[in-house]
Amino acid sequence: MKVNGKHYRSIWVESDGMTVGIIDQTKLPFEFIEKQLHSLEDAVEAISVMRVRGAPLIGATAAYGICLAMRADASDDSLDQAYERLLSARPTAVNLRWALDEMRAVLRNIRRADRVTAAYKRAAEICDDDVATNEAIGRHALALFEQHWTAKGREGQLNILTHCNAGWLATVDWGTALAPIYMAHDAGIPVHVWVDETRPRNQGAALTAWELGSHGVPHTVIVDNAGGHLMQRGAVDLCIVGTDRTTAAGDVCNKIGTYLKALAARDNDIPFYVALPGTTIDWTIDDGADIPIEERDGAEVSQLSGRNGAGDIVTIDLMADGSTAANYAFDVTPATLVSALVTERGISEPNKSSLSALYAEMNETE
Amino acid sequence: MKVNGKHYRSIWVESDGMTVGIIDQTKLPFEFIEKQLHSLEDAVEAISVMRVRGAPLIGATAAYGICLAMRADASDDSLDQAYERLLSARPTAVNLRWALDEMRAVLRNIRRADRVTAAYKRAAEICDDDVATNEAIGRHALALFEQHWTAKGREGQLNILTHCNAGWLATVDWGTALAPIYMAHDAGIPVHVWVDETRPRNQGAALTAWELGSHGVPHTVIVDNAGGHLMQRGAVDLCIVGTDRTTAAGDVCNKIGTYLKALAARDNDIPFYVALPGTTIDWTIDDGADIPIEERDGAEVSQLSGRNGAGDIVTIDLMADGSTAANYAFDVTPATLVSALVTERGISEPNKSSLSALYAEMNETE
Repeated sequence: MKVNGKHYRSIWVESDGMTVGIIDQTKLPFEFIEKQLHSLEDAVEAISVMRVRGAPLIGATAAYGICLAMRADASDDSLDQAYERLLSARPTAVNLRWALDEMRAVLRNIRRADRVTAAYKRAAEICDDDVATNEAIGRHALALFEQHWTAKGREGQLNILTHCNAGWLATVDWGTALAPIYMAHDAGIPVHVWVDETRPRNQGAALTAWELGSHGVPHTVIVDNAGGHLMQRGAVDLCIVGTDRTTAAGDVCNKIGTYLKALAARDNDIPFYVALPGTTIDWTIDDGADIPIEERDGAEVSQLSGRNGAGDIVTIDLMADGSTAANYAFDVTPATLVSALVTERGISEPNKSSLSALYAEMNETE
Repeated sequence: MKVNGKHYRSIWVESDGMTVGIIDQTKLPFEFIEKQLHSLEDAVEAISVMRVRGAPLIGATAAYGICLAMRADASDDSLDQAYERLLSARPTAVNLRWALDEMRAVLRNIRRADRVTAAYKRAAEICDDDVATNEAIGRHALALFEQHWTAKGREGQLNILTHCNAGWLATVDWGTALAPIYMAHDAGIPVHVWVDETRPRNQGAALTAWELGSHGVPHTVIVDNAGGHLMQRGAVDLCIVGTDRTTAAGDVCNKIGTYLKALAARDNDIPFYVALPGTTIDWTIDDGADIPIEERDGAEVSQLSGRNGAGDIVTIDLMADGSTAANYAFDVTPATLVSALVTERGISEPNKSSLSALYAEMNETE
């Protein structure tokens, strides 16, 4: 998508053909800073401190992390170590593992001398595939949006609530949950987005609002507490979110707080959609309770960064000395609360038979 | 309750017998600052910018606001104007109106020369009554806590989730939802409190955590998004919150986000209790949808105050330029999601017949 009129992807290879470029998302929305990754360590650090985040972008960054590792040392040991280092950088996102498996499958059985070239080629394919996947997700979800807009009599605006950031910054381009919002806006549907600020890291207020604003999509930031009230008062027509991992039975693991919005949507008969590439489906797990939930540093809750009056980005303490904070990064929304899963292959009911039918080859290989 | 070993109420009359003292709650948890109210204007300002907040304390402050107005001008016009000024300072809290009605009833039909003395006397009674009320609420809720602790086999700890601040800072002393927590802790039940930070104004992280910490009650601050996940994973034994206004049929208006926690409690079969003095019941309304919901400045969402590295309290911007925020202060939890209402007169089912039976005189006067 465009930033100040220039088209960007969220990750790219610099003109030297080797160095990997990213946007340092920890500085947004106040500073738009490109950052170069030169080594495996750089890639691990970018993932773990969330300079890049969002399941698809984590996968793409991990793929390039393997490329950078191969440049330094193309041995089997180096490949295995890079795989493990990157995998442990974020424990919940399942397409981190998927991307790493893809890279290892390509590299394992070819000569060391060919590995760097093959790695960059496969990583580029993963990125291109992600863009195509998100565009397809957007088209399928757009059809749903069109139905809701028509059902509403095509009057007023179509009010959409989203949580966290499942936009182009979370993917290589387009985004998952935000792709159909961009498409609907471009198609002339008067969408308005309620953006959950998404504590503790405020990816909604910092990233989603910035993305939508850059593209000119009307939106309003709200605290995470507000969505239920808006649904009760008829101000939300539909919800759409992304996911970091979805089980084979349709349970959805996504940013902490998603479950609460899904409960409110159900209580108010509002559709709750989840947009996902097939790579975020964990075919080895049915029950979302079996997904490990990442616990992060409590300082992400007790401190917050923003811009002070002088224009500097500063970090402030929010809590009294002596109090501690816990920080769970994700929760699980049971499939029963999901209206539909929107994949690159089309709409799936949130259950095992519907998902399996859409990805038949995944079951054949089991 | 105690602050650094000294017992405080949240509002008092200074030694001159006229000036009203409060704790400036906008400075907590970083600075404990007493502030003097000398005039009606001071009282209105303290309520509207939330130096004092919490339904019972708002009522008590309004009562003293009438006292201060009478000191300046004990006329009927002055009384009427003070009533209206104070009533409009916060639109949702129903015992603001209750306290003002009490004051006007006492003052209306007595000589002007007697009004100042009578006003201070009635305001002091309102404060003393609030303390007694909260102590009674605490005792009734403590009996419930004892039941849950016994049902849990009296092993481990009793995990309690609360939202916003319904502690002694929200009342004159003890608090509503926190009163039984203090009593349980003092009685040797190993309580642990999950404290919702409670965006946008962070009364949980700033006030509840500070209160609990000052009294030595174990607690952990979490983002508002996290409670559902904790309930799913068995880490919450019960929820208890306060309320700003409860309808005659038991719908509960409380800090924005309460509804989401009540939905999650229901989904996970966890008791959801609401602690309230009878003065927060609005006998004129049955349906919570009829309660006006205060909308506050979006800057409370887009900006946040805290302590920087130098120890100064500073305000930072959280959002990109050009994005706007909406700020709804309360939501309504339908009675169907409430396990029980804990009043100073005992436990009520969340319905009209049970509440009416407990407050029979309210129905006789209708």
